[in-house]
Amino acid sequence: MSVEQARLARAYLLRVAEPPARELAQLVTAHGPVAAAELVRSGQAPGRVRAETEARAQLDRAERDLEEAAAVGAELVIPEDDGWPAWPLLALDVAARAGVRWAGQPLGLWVRGRIDLDACTERAVALVGARASSGYGDHHAAEFAYGLTGRGFTVLSGAAYGIDGAAHRGSLAAGGPTIAVLGCGPDVHYPAGHVRLLDQVAEQGAVVSEYPPGTQPARHRFLVRNRLIAALASGTVVIEAGARSGARNTASTAGALGKVVMAVPGPVSSASSAGCNQLIRARDALLVSGVAEIVEAVGPIGSAMTTVDGPRRPTDDLGPQTLRVHEALRVDQGQSAGEIAVSAGIPLDRARVLLTELEGGGFASRLGQGWVRTRVRQESAEARVSAQAECQRAEG
Amino acid sequence: MSVEQARLARAYLLRVAEPPARELAQLVTAHGPVAAAELVRSGQAPGRVRAETEARAQLDRAERDLEEAAAVGAELVIPEDDGWPAWPLLALDVAARAGVRWAGQPLGLWVRGRIDLDACTERAVALVGARASSGYGDHHAAEFAYGLTGRGFTVLSGAAYGIDGAAHRGSLAAGGPTIAVLGCGPDVHYPAGHVRLLDQVAEQGAVVSEYPPGTQPARHRFLVRNRLIAALASGTVVIEAGARSGARNTASTAGALGKVVMAVPGPVSSASSAGCNQLIRARDALLVSGVAEIVEAVGPIGSAMTTVDGPRRPTDDLGPQTLRVHEALRVDQGQSAGEIAVSAGIPLDRARVLLTELEGGGFASRLGQGWVRTRVRQESAEARVSAQAECQRAEG
Repeated sequence: MSVEQARLARAYLLRVAEPPARELAQLVTAHGPVAAAELVRSGQAPGRVRAETEARAQLDRAERDLEEAAAVGAELVIPEDDGWPAWPLLALDVAARAGVRWAGQPLGLWVRGRIDLDACTERAVALVGARASSGYGDHHAAEFAYGLTGRGFTVLSGAAYGIDGAAHRGSLAAGGPTIAVLGCGPDVHYPAGHVRLLDQVAEQGAVVSEYPPGTQPARHRFLVRNRLIAALASGTVVIEAGARSGARNTASTAGALGKVVMAVPGPVSSASSAGCNQLIRARDALLVSGVAEIVEAVGPIGSAMTTVDGPRRPTDDLGPQTLRVHEALRVDQGQSAGEIAVSAGIPLDRARVLLTELEGGGFASRLGQGWVRTRVRQESAEARVSAQAECQRAEG
Repeated sequence: MSVEQARLARAYLLRVAEPPARELAQLVTAHGPVAAAELVRSGQAPGRVRAETEARAQLDRAERDLEEAAAVGAELVIPEDDGWPAWPLLALDVAARAGVRWAGQPLGLWVRGRIDLDACTERAVALVGARASSGYGDHHAAEFAYGLTGRGFTVLSGAAYGIDGAAHRGSLAAGGPTIAVLGCGPDVHYPAGHVRLLDQVAEQGAVVSEYPPGTQPARHRFLVRNRLIAALASGTVVIEAGARSGARNTASTAGALGKVVMAVPGPVSSASSAGCNQLIRARDALLVSGVAEIVEAVGPIGSAMTTVDGPRRPTDDLGPQTLRVHEALRVDQGQSAGEIAVSAGIPLDRARVLLTELEGGGFASRLGQGWVRTRVRQESAEARVSAQAECQRAEG
């Protein structure tokens, strides 16, 4: 199977199933994209996959999709490519295995732009918030994006009006890269007022989508899209959000994926800060008031100054649930996931996700059938510098 | 020993030692106020008590102090009186026994006003903040005080310019009572611009101080005073505070006493909210954005609506350290304070304080030499209504 065969197969599969298509993704994992596409095309896929695909199974326009994408400067990046952001997207697999309904990796990503997605998401922060933002929110979205970009972070957002737009603009002003993740096809001019902004994002960063060319925006697609924003970033900052803003959905998604969730507080009298204040109050989000605090929360260990409140511990960056699981681990003796779940007071499925995340972060390791706490992996300064250089090279 | 003999003795002792005088307080506990006063007066007190008292031991002007106080409408309320707020001040004893340097009960309180301190502190909230407040802070101090007073809470503050003044005024506007705790004598006109305000507070509530008539304000006295504000309230709300505001001292004092610490978030660009945002970020304070959330945090269990975030547990009102100690307790088996301290990861002295607090709240009880978790005491609605009525009667 060549990579180009895999690309054609995945382009076909992205067209026939509405993401996230969990059964189809499992079929691809089991048989590979080419065989999976053939099973779907011939109507021989298992019943549950057919339920996800049969409405569009005959819609075989992979080559045309690739051509239409190329016409707007987009290509399909797939797991078989070097630039596939495998590590950040792993959280989606972990969550899917734990039964999180909306999780699961995308089968591929339509990417308009020249950056290396994998390198540029190594240090990435999502800045999200309300479309109906205030001057306070717009100002800080732009300032934070500018500052984060200047410190080598890629800013992710959703290209919407309000906070999203301000974040992309702040990052562009600092030279980018910035990544816009869409809930429509990569060639669709949405929102209409952001056509020029999307062109700039594609020039200095990337416009990314799971949806094939021509796919129109829809409410459910934004929710599905939000999981990609949350997954591709190490942490998500809600800049401004009303009590029922969609940005809170991205925040809770990020939390469920074990990513760092942050929020900017605002006046208690401001409706556009109500969602942020609620997230902080419920301890679902860490209060951040500036770029330094964001870097401290998401950056590699040791990349930020210690706070005045005392020395930082490596585990300070873990979310509250992750920390409880970490604290339940023993250094001297393995425990089953079930024992750890009981000890931490966290549902077994969720504990399993967090244990795998802790393992990925070097905080836990498997011992026989059980788990133990491990010493913390210290990412070296050289590794950081090299990752940044790689991201820059890919831009050239 | 008559109550009036005790009052004269305590007036004398309040004059001869600068609060908090821990050794003197222990002498009073051991021998009673009259005998303790005689020991001090005659120079026969133990050496450590003499160190606290000898500079002023000959300053025997108890009757004159009582007269001077009476001239401004103040009297000395002492532990031997029915109106002594024994329950809220207990936290100071507990902390003192655990070795907290600044803790320890006052030997008496000079009170200008007609309210029953004990009844009126049953449901009391401290609203504190910066003198250099903004319109945002002043507005919310007044609004919160007004709302809390309307819901039967007594608002405590320190009568300073800025947030304190706004809080007292908001409470007075709702009909009071409000309590101002001073860092100078009850007859001292400080701050000068608040003379009229203090008169109103005394009319509709109480002006309270440990310091004898004529005592001038001093920086260390405000810090000593802050412990009384924190102790007399069930919870302290920092409305607005700079990064190094004295209001943060009251907040950390309240936390050390096991009281609920709350803070109002503000714009990250506002210097006068920086202290509040820091307290929330460090999880030293619960974010509150309105009266309902304050009532929920400090009110008797069941007095507030449940939040949208899920049903409340009785332990939701406990501070983070108290909660850790509570979680370390076992229902089925007694553990020593030492075992609990290790399990909770909290220093032994502090764990002992919190265990006693938990016992007072009905969350823990002693079993032999150890401690066990107990079922939560539910304060009945009738008890609450009767306490409020008592507070109102005392005002008449």
